[in-house]
Order: sequence, then C-alpha cells, then structure tokens
Amino acid sequence: MRGFYIGRFQPYHDGHHHMVAEIAEQVDELVLGIGSAGDSHTRRNPFTAGERVMMITKSVAEFDLPTYVVPIEDLERNSVWVSHVQSMSPAFDIAFSNNPLVIRLFEEAGVEVRQSPMYNRDVLEGTEVRDRMIAGDDWERLVPDAVVEVVEETGGLERIQRVSDSDSNGK
Amino acid sequence: MRGFYIGRFQPYHDGHHHMVAEIAEQVDELVLGIGSAGDSHTRRNPFTAGERVMMITKSVAEFDLPTYVVPIEDLERNSVWVSHVQSMSPAFDIAFSNNPLVIRLFEEAGVEVRQSPMYNRDVLEGTEVRDRMIAGDDWERLVPDAVVEVVEETGGLERIQRVSDSDSNGK
Amino acid sequence: MRGFYIGRFQPYHDGHHHMVAEIAEQVDELVLGIGSAGDSHTRRNPFTAGERVMMITKSVAEFDLPTYVVPIEDLERNSVWVSHVQSMSPAFDIAFSNNPLVIRLFEEAGVEVRQSPMYNRDVLEGTEVRDRMIAGDDWERLVPDAVVEVVEETGGLERIQRVSDSDSNGK
Amino acid sequence: MRGFYIGRFQPYHDGHHHMVAEIAEQVDELVLGIGSAGDSHTRRNPFTAGERVMMITKSVAEFDLPTYVVPIEDLERNSVWVSHVQSMSPAFDIAFSNNPLVIRLFEEAGVEVRQSPMYNRDVLEGTEVRDRMIAGDDWERLVPDAVVEVVEETGGLERIQRVSDSDSNGK
Amino acid sequence: MRGFYIGRFQPYHDGHHHMVAEIAEQVDELVLGIGSAGDSHTRRNPFTAGERVMMITKSVAEFDLPTYVVPIEDLERNSVWVSHVQSMSPAFDIAFSNNPLVIRLFEEAGVEVRQSPMYNRDVLEGTEVRDRMIAGDDWERLVPDAVVEVVEETGGLERIQRVSDSDSNGK
Amino acid sequence: MRGFYIGRFQPYHDGHHHMVAEIAEQVDELVLGIGSAGDSHTRRNPFTAGERVMMITKSVAEFDLPTYVVPIEDLERNSVWVSHVQSMSPAFDIAFSNNPLVIRLFEEAGVEVRQSPMYNRDVLEGTEVRDRMIAGDDWERLVPDAVVEVVEETGGLERIQRVSDSDSNGK
Repeated sequence: MRGFYIGRFQPYHDGHHHMVAEIAEQVDELVLGIGSAGDSHTRRNPFTAGERVMMITKSVAEFDLPTYVVPIEDLERNSVWVSHVQSMSPAFDIAFSNNPLVIRLFEEAGVEVRQSPMYNRDVLEGTEVRDRMIAGDDWERLVPDAVVEVVEETGGLERIQRVSDSDSNGK
Repeated sequence: MRGFYIGRFQPYHDGHHHMVAEIAEQVDELVLGIGSAGDSHTRRNPFTAGERVMMITKSVAEFDLPTYVVPIEDLERNSVWVSHVQSMSPAFDIAFSNNPLVIRLFEEAGVEVRQSPMYNRDVLEGTEVRDRMIAGDDWERLVPDAVVEVVEETGGLERIQRVSDSDSNGK
Repeated sequence: MRGFYIGRFQPYHDGHHHMVAEIAEQVDELVLGIGSAGDSHTRRNPFTAGERVMMITKSVAEFDLPTYVVPIEDLERNSVWVSHVQSMSPAFDIAFSNNPLVIRLFEEAGVEVRQSPMYNRDVLEGTEVRDRMIAGDDWERLVPDAVVEVVEETGGLERIQRVSDSDSNGK
Repeated sequence: MRGFYIGRFQPYHDGHHHMVAEIAEQVDELVLGIGSAGDSHTRRNPFTAGERVMMITKSVAEFDLPTYVVPIEDLERNSVWVSHVQSMSPAFDIAFSNNPLVIRLFEEAGVEVRQSPMYNRDVLEGTEVRDRMIAGDDWERLVPDAVVEVVEETGGLERIQRVSDSDSNGK
Repeated sequence: MRGFYIGRFQPYHDGHHHMVAEIAEQVDELVLGIGSAGDSHTRRNPFTAGERVMMITKSVAEFDLPTYVVPIEDLERNSVWVSHVQSMSPAFDIAFSNNPLVIRLFEEAGVEVRQSPMYNRDVLEGTEVRDRMIAGDDWERLVPDAVVEVVEETGGLERIQRVSDSDSNGK
Repeated sequence: MRGFYIGRFQPYHDGHHHMVAEIAEQVDELVLGIGSAGDSHTRRNPFTAGERVMMITKSVAEFDLPTYVVPIEDLERNSVWVSHVQSMSPAFDIAFSNNPLVIRLFEEAGVEVRQSPMYNRDVLEGTEVRDRMIAGDDWERLVPDAVVEVVEETGGLERIQRVSDSDSNGK
C-alpha cells in the first residue's frame, strides 16, 4: 500500500518528521508531495523546491521505507488539483492530511483520506521555525539535522532574513 | 437587442433573479457571463462553473427570453478583459453592471453600460447566502428553487461548510 | 440522464447536427462542450467561442431537449483534462465521442463513453466546410440555417478567407 | 557601463526622476524596467505599460543619456525572475534598487546591486501621488510635466478615481 | 500622429530598416513592437527580446523620429491580441503591416492599417539572414551595422549555429 | 560532486540506464530531471510524470548512488529554463547532456556540461521502444524490468496503443 502526504515543507521540520514516522507504520511506500513548488524567496515560502527535495530526502533516509519526493507546482484551480497531483505522483491508495480543503478535494475525487489531530502541529511549527530563523533564534532544535545542513549550504538563513523586510517596489 | 450581465453567481440568488427580470424588459436576448469560472471549493467561490451553469439555466427558464449562459475564466489582465469577454460571448449591444471596474473597462472599450442602484443587492446578498449556508441557517429563502436543487444534488452545502475552516497546509 | 458531447464546432455543421439528433434519443439533457474555446481567427479555428455558442444554441433549439452549451478553454494538460471539463460542465453520466484520445481520457477517469462509426463524419465535414468557405464554394448546404446567419452577421466568411493566406510576420 | 533600474512607475514621479538623475552620473546607458507590466486599471496599478512607457520616455529625454524603456510582465516565480528580466533587457552590468527582494534575487544570481537610502522616496511618493489623484488634490507638483500630459491625454485621472471605489462583483 | 509597426525582428535587418525609413515620412512618432518577445534560442527565434531592443534602438537612432521599442510577449489568443498590444504600447493611430492575420485583427478592432507590397521583403530576408548566419555566409551585408555589433557582443552567431542542429532530448 | 541528467524518459530504457551507470562513476550524487513533466497520453509522451518517477526510482535503486528524481514542467521560455531547472533540483555542479539546445542554455548560464557520443542512443531508443509498444512487438527487452512492471500496472501499453491513432476531434 502506498500513501501520499503533502505539505509546503517551508522548511521540513520535526512536526513533519514525526508525522512521517507515524505514517511509515501504516504504508509500504510513501510519496511526499512538495506543494507550491514554484514559490520561493518570500517570508512564507523561503526555500526553492529543489532545496526542499534535498531537506526531505536526506531526513527520511533514516526510515526503512521506500519514499518518493515530488515537487508539485500550483495550478490555481481547485477543481483539477487532485488530477494534477495524481499525474505528478506515483499512484497512491490513501492520502494523509488534516487540511480541510485538501481533505474535501480528495474525498470528492473518491480518494480515501486519513486524518490525525496531531497533524496540526506541522502548520504551527512551520510559522514558528520561520519566525525564529528571521529573529536569529534557536530554530535548529525544531528541524532534523539534515535540514540544518541544507539551510546552511544554501545561505537560506540570510535569504529569509533579507526578503522578510521586503516591500514591493517594482516587484 | 442583446444584453450582457456578468456576475460570479456564487450562488445565483434572488437579487440576481430580480435583476434578470428587470433586464428582460429591456432586451431581446440576454447573455449571462459567469465570472471567475475557474474558481471553486473556497468560502468565497464554493461552486464550479458547471454547477453555476445549471443553477442559472434552470432558474431563468421561467422568463420568456432567449438566454446564453457562458463561463468566463479569469485572465488576470484588466486591459484585455473586455476582448476576452467578447470572444467568449455572443455579440452584445449593451452591458449591465454596477461594478465600477467593469463599468470603466467597458466604457474605455466603447461599450454602452447601464447601471441601477438596485444592482448592489446582488453583492450584499451573495455574502449573506454563503454565510447562512455555512451556519446552516435558512439560506433556501434567498435563492430560486432550482438553485436549492442543484446545491443539494452536488453536496454543495457540505462542501462550503468543510472548506470554510480551511487553513492552508500544503495548498 | 445527462450526456456530454464535445467538439471544436468550427463551424457547427450537419454532421454534428445529425449526431445531436441521434444522442437526443438516448439522453434527457445534453451538454455541448465547445473545445479549444480560446482559439479563433485561424484557418483551422476561424470562429470565436461566442460565435460558436450562438451557432449551436440556435441550431439545437429545434430539438425538444434541454441543452447546455459550454465553452471550454484548453489547459494543455491531458492528465487534468477530464477534471477541467467536469468543472466547466453540468454533471453528466455519459460522454459521446469517437476521438481515441478523448475516449481514453474519459475511460481512465471512469466515465462511460459511447462511440458510433457515424461520428467520424464531423471531422471530415469540418475540413470540407472550411475549405469551401475559403474557396467561396457552396458551404451553406453543409450547415444548419442558423449557422449561415451567424457567419454572415459576424463577417466570418471574409475572416477565414483573409487569415488563410496568413504568413507569420510578427505574429 | 550599462545600468538597470526597475520600478512599477505607477506613475513615474519626481522621486524616480531624481534617482535617474543620480544614476545618470554613474553609467553610460540606462535600462528602465517597467515592472508588473500586465497590471492596470486598479487603485495600486492604474496605468498600462504603454502609458508608463510614454511617461518615462518623454521625462528622461532631458538627460543626456541613452535609455531603453522595457515593460516586464510578471512571471510569479521569484526563482526565475532575474533570468526573465535579463531576457527582456539589453545586457546590463549593475542593478539599482533598494527593494530587499530585488536585491537578494540579483545577488543570488551574481549581479552587482547598488543601493541608496534616497531610493525609498519612490515607494512613499507613489502612494502619495495616487492618493492625491483620487482625492483630486495637487498631484501635478509631484511628477514631471510629461507625466501630467500623458495622464491627461489618456483620461488617467478619471480612471483611477473610478476604479478606486470598485468592489468585485463578477470581476 | 503615431504609428505602430510590429515584427519579430529575428534579427532586425535592412528590409525592416527600409520600411521604417518609409514609415518615418508618414508619422510623427513610431512604436516598434517586438513580437514573440519570450521566444529565443531557436533556429527561427535566436535572439532574446533584450537583444532585439538593443539592435533596433541603435539602428533607428539615425532617423530624426521619436521611437518607442516595446517587447510584446505572446498571449496565444488571437481574440485578445489587439488589446494586449494596445496595453503594452503608447497609443497609436495607425498600424503598418502586410501580414494578413495582423491586418484582420486590427481591422476587426477598428484600427486603421496601411499595407505596402514592399513589406513582404522583411519576411523573406529574415529567413535568408538566419540561413546565412548558420552557414557562416556573408550575413553582415543584410543588416545595419548596429545589428552586427549586437550579434557579436552577445555571441549570437555561435548560438544560432549551435541550437540549429538541436534535436529534442529532454527539452 | 552532484550531477544532473535530464530526459523525457518516455519511457526510461536501457539507453538511459547505461548512461546513468556511466555517470555514476563520475559523481557522488545524481539528480534525474524528468522533462516535459506535464505531458502525457500522447504517442510521443505516453506516460505521466508520476509513472516516470516510479520507473526511474525503481530502476536506479540497483546503483550504489544517492539519487533524486525530479519532475520538471515545461515553461516554454528557453531564456529562463536553466533557472527553472535549478529551482526544482537540488544544487548540482555539472550537467550531462548531448542535446545541443540544452548544452547551449547551460553554457550561457555558466554551468559545466559533459557530453558523450553514446548519449545519442537514448533518443533513438525512445522512439524505438514506443514504436514497438504500439505494434505490440518485443519492447520489454529494451527497458529495465522495473519499467515493464510499471507499464503493466498502469495499463500503459493499452494507453499508448489507443492514443496513437488519435485524430483531434474536439481536443
């Protein structure tokens, strides 16, 4: 059985990681879909899809679970979103999400969805991690070690700090 | 003489219906343009273009007026919007709107526009209908019977209630 | 039971019309999807979506069958095409097509498709009608009367003749 | 040496003009990139790219500096923005900006950027000019004479006043 | 009176240059629209919009005529093409073209068009210039000196030779 | 050192596989970019990105090499293609390609490219594999075992045979 778990992973953090650990016990293979793959260089979406691919691939290597990490660009059309995801991902039997829109879209398309109250953690922690990165606080404790390495290699900390006081002159 | 009346129709309600009744006395044929046709499954735009086509077509059947119901996808470019509308619609002689932007765009393109203070009702009522749908209040009294049927057939009530407490984890 | 029949309808001609007559005996309501709605002003796609809406609506009025005429813009993504069509159209139970790609896409999405050898006529006749229009030959005999009227009102004959010897200087 | 300076120029005003004067002393040629070229007819982006081309070209004629004025449509992808700009503009050696996002994107792409505290004026003054236009106040004193002419010729004042009380019924 | 002349200018050559000389006697100002601005790095469209802006601006400097050089990205929608062009260009009174599609589109939009048999030269010569560039033949004699300079500065000759034997492995 | 190798992989076959084996000796990690990720269900591009992700991931598992498999949607803009690829992929030091356009684009962007005459095999074999699939010939011998499994699981053989005699009625 193959599962599908989608997030923006900006960045991939311990909340995501615990969720993957939990999902790993329910499936044989897992697809991790990187949402809003085209977005980057903003306070809310600082990292490119490629950087997120690297964060996730290196972090989930510790699980004994075949995984696929797939960037998924936005189509801005809720009504075709499930088909879009299905075309970019290896076929999956079940989706994991706690997001009401994602759940609704999958259900209308006849895809089984599993929820867990614990899933909310990833939303809260994503904001917390980015706020700490901007403030220069202790964000490293909230993410797997592999993520710290990727952020450092790509100059991600300087980037999010810089673009966060961006106004919009000409952009 | 053919008229053109555009709205998002999320959903088509009595405010729209009275307006169509009024317009019906001024024109020989009427085109109803469904704006933001690609949007659906959100609190503000819950219904697909196809669902709205059905709501409107069934509701306006009571008028003795040849009508065309045309979904119009957003182009996100105000400067070409009138040309886009004209390419999707049977040719029309006059546009009906109370929206300042729509009026201005048609006027710059040399299209005659008719306004009516009454038109504001449709904006107010759209929000009111959606709020009642979400709260489970008595929304059925604000829309034609055909709309109640379409909403029920498509599970529209459950959909708007579900997506309305959506956050944006991964979407 | 509601059926769905898609074509480019460039223009709507007797081949299409016979097919609609045949489908009318199998369904309660019919959706006519206008494919490649955004294309116009070329030899292969001379008419705008709005012009085609008018041709079709006026031609099918003779049948005692509730019809919906829906322009459908190309998305250039076969894998989401069925979802796109479903979002723009009133819900349908069965699709009518003889096009192998369309059949395949609907079947992969679990939609029942009905074919008929007769359907090939519409492809052949579309080219024939356009060639005659360009040559100034007797094209009027191959289309319903309502189509002749629309083509004349919109200057369609002059248009297709003009754009057909187009080279591509700057366009 | 060729410089590049980007703004939305909604409209081009004295703040921009002083900046161009300052840049003129540092470069041999200057490219002025008009950002968000596809946006128009809104309170924040009232003028079309073509109107802005005219404002700028006529205003900078007074400098003894070869200039290129290039509209640049948004791509909505920060990660390819620099390549997009570079493909639309004559090759340049240095970029002038005080916008943190623009600076960061150019720096990641290896393009030298020069900043100046004075650059902030253009953001502040843009809002001020538009607010005065809407209120009918004395906006003409904040822009070069050529801009006043363009605004008057194109009915720009009436346009911004009209669209500013726009709601979004159907658009 | 302001004129508008559009081409792909791949590259700008003597045929274009003679046409501009002729147009210069009929108008007070001239807008040169660079069509297919987003295309580059192919046999048919080797140069970027920015490179073409530079070729044209430097070449037309010899005329005593205020000119605007405006890149225009394709929208792939003939029915909105004129509006798109008008939004990107300073307002113009007359268009110059010998392309049947362009003529038809402007005429349907009510824009006056002037043709000249001589205009065909630019199409023929564009292919000839590119073929000579690829073969390493004497292409320099068919273009203004400024174009030779731009092609040399940007490595344009090597580029067109390289991409011309491109197959499509992965692109 | 991380390498990048792009192809459409329609499907992934022995030619690709030998190339990966060769590249594996030159790099520490490898990114496999799946080009034209949005295309599927045509004779030339039968498989979805997700199906190709599965084919490749399962096939390359035999190498002792950390790999990333990344779908890359077309942007239809050569001038921003390298930036787009770089944003979707983990950072890489060297690109492997024998495609003249790809080579040129990477070189203009300052990315080192390695070529090999052997690389041409993958283009030739891709066509051969698809032709055999359509004819029902012995295609299984030209691809890794994992690819045979994926094609069988997804009904890929029936799909390519079906869409290959597609005309274009309405699509």
